[in-house]
Amino acid sequence: MPFSLSLSRAWARSNSLLCVGLDPDPGKMPAHLAHTPDAIYQFCKAITDATADLVCAFKPQIAYFAAQRAEDQLEALIEHIHTAHPQVPVILDVKRGDIGSTAEQYAREAFERYKADAVTVNPYMGFDSIEPWLAHADRGVFLLCRTSNPGGADLQMLDVGGEKLYERVARLAAGPWNGGGELGLVVGATVPDELARVRALAPGLPLLVPGIGAQGGDVQATVAAGRTANGLGMVINSSRAILYAGRGEDFAQAARQAASEARDTINRFRNA
Amino acid sequence: MPFSLSLSRAWARSNSLLCVGLDPDPGKMPAHLAHTPDAIYQFCKAITDATADLVCAFKPQIAYFAAQRAEDQLEALIEHIHTAHPQVPVILDVKRGDIGSTAEQYAREAFERYKADAVTVNPYMGFDSIEPWLAHADRGVFLLCRTSNPGGADLQMLDVGGEKLYERVARLAAGPWNGGGELGLVVGATVPDELARVRALAPGLPLLVPGIGAQGGDVQATVAAGRTANGLGMVINSSRAILYAGRGEDFAQAARQAASEARDTINRFRNA
Repeated sequence: MPFSLSLSRAWARSNSLLCVGLDPDPGKMPAHLAHTPDAIYQFCKAITDATADLVCAFKPQIAYFAAQRAEDQLEALIEHIHTAHPQVPVILDVKRGDIGSTAEQYAREAFERYKADAVTVNPYMGFDSIEPWLAHADRGVFLLCRTSNPGGADLQMLDVGGEKLYERVARLAAGPWNGGGELGLVVGATVPDELARVRALAPGLPLLVPGIGAQGGDVQATVAAGRTANGLGMVINSSRAILYAGRGEDFAQAARQAASEARDTINRFRNA
Repeated sequence: MPFSLSLSRAWARSNSLLCVGLDPDPGKMPAHLAHTPDAIYQFCKAITDATADLVCAFKPQIAYFAAQRAEDQLEALIEHIHTAHPQVPVILDVKRGDIGSTAEQYAREAFERYKADAVTVNPYMGFDSIEPWLAHADRGVFLLCRTSNPGGADLQMLDVGGEKLYERVARLAAGPWNGGGELGLVVGATVPDELARVRALAPGLPLLVPGIGAQGGDVQATVAAGRTANGLGMVINSSRAILYAGRGEDFAQAARQAASEARDTINRFRNA
């Protein structure tokens, strides 16, 4: 099934634009898991089981696994999600970007080894660094466009001849670069004006929007700026505010509560 | 020891600007290694042992290891280089780029887990995505600037107000972004005019230059464009032309021969 269709079904089924980001930081995880050998897997598995009906996607961030030598736990986690929650697409946040022959290796890592449904990719190296990802049928590719960090403006906001660099990326992604129709864009919730501009330039593309919750993006402004006419089109990510809502033995219930509130808040503004 | 000093010593000791890129592709490796369980490690180890006195650096490309589930072999390989060839710095080619808290995880992966001396980083997300890498003392960070692939021009050559985007990256790296003095730049050998421009904008920065050999960059033009006044300043990478110079049991000798010729060719033009 094409990624865009998986995502549309996930939006409809869950009535949610919320994505839970899986950024497992051992220093913040519940104390009782500390001595479990596969603590990262157990932690993330519990979070996904507690929130799967509330989300349109899960987004593991690969750096948190790689820094802990936990690639095997990431493999097991994605396999668990596909088995226990097959209706929830997995966006593997890798932000790779390299030339063609190396991009093919990265695509193999993400799509064949980890079996991700979609990835994040950095566009700085241009279209031939993106093309090898698009060769994998039915997988989605979210290009970094306007990122949520303060330094995101350093290059992305430069004027490249009547438009900003991030606007150029959005136009290319909505047009010539989107041959297979499986591109999306990453735009931070912390920059709602630019989010609205991206939505105008790329009316049909799914937008992956980090930055609500711990990063402080305003939900109402985010939803107003990024939604499509039918109130969909966004994958709004929250990581820390959900993962670490509780740090006791009931952490998964606390995460569920936080995810439920985030979904409802988004829906209130989505349908406004 | 600061990375810049390690690199200066490596240039002096080896009388070489050549870097051998370690991109182990099982489909191209010698047939007799095919059934070795740690074939990737054995292949790369043999290449490094055969070429260590001819190079100023080794550059493993992490995607080739990750796609094969061979992170442990990459760890073992870098440990081998540090032990057997401590005079040769290891540049881990990861091209990461992410926001601060996630960049810290990536830096931990590269510098603590893999113990790389330097890395490649993508600048699209701006300075605060680069800063966490610079917090690791004595490690080098090569920012993508003007890349060797055809699509490199898509964004990097856009005019951002009297200069191109890659020129802006070079100026930032040579100036305000280079607090600790450990930044370098990645510029392709396939674009010698832009390489000369980067050298003018960043007279003191080490340049990592892929694209000679299989990618077809002209050595004479590359050296003329990128060398500093003292004939140094460049880490010129060749991967496939050296790794796969031979595919029989004497592959390491064939690699040595190819590396030796590449070094000599570079030196002929360096001293011209």
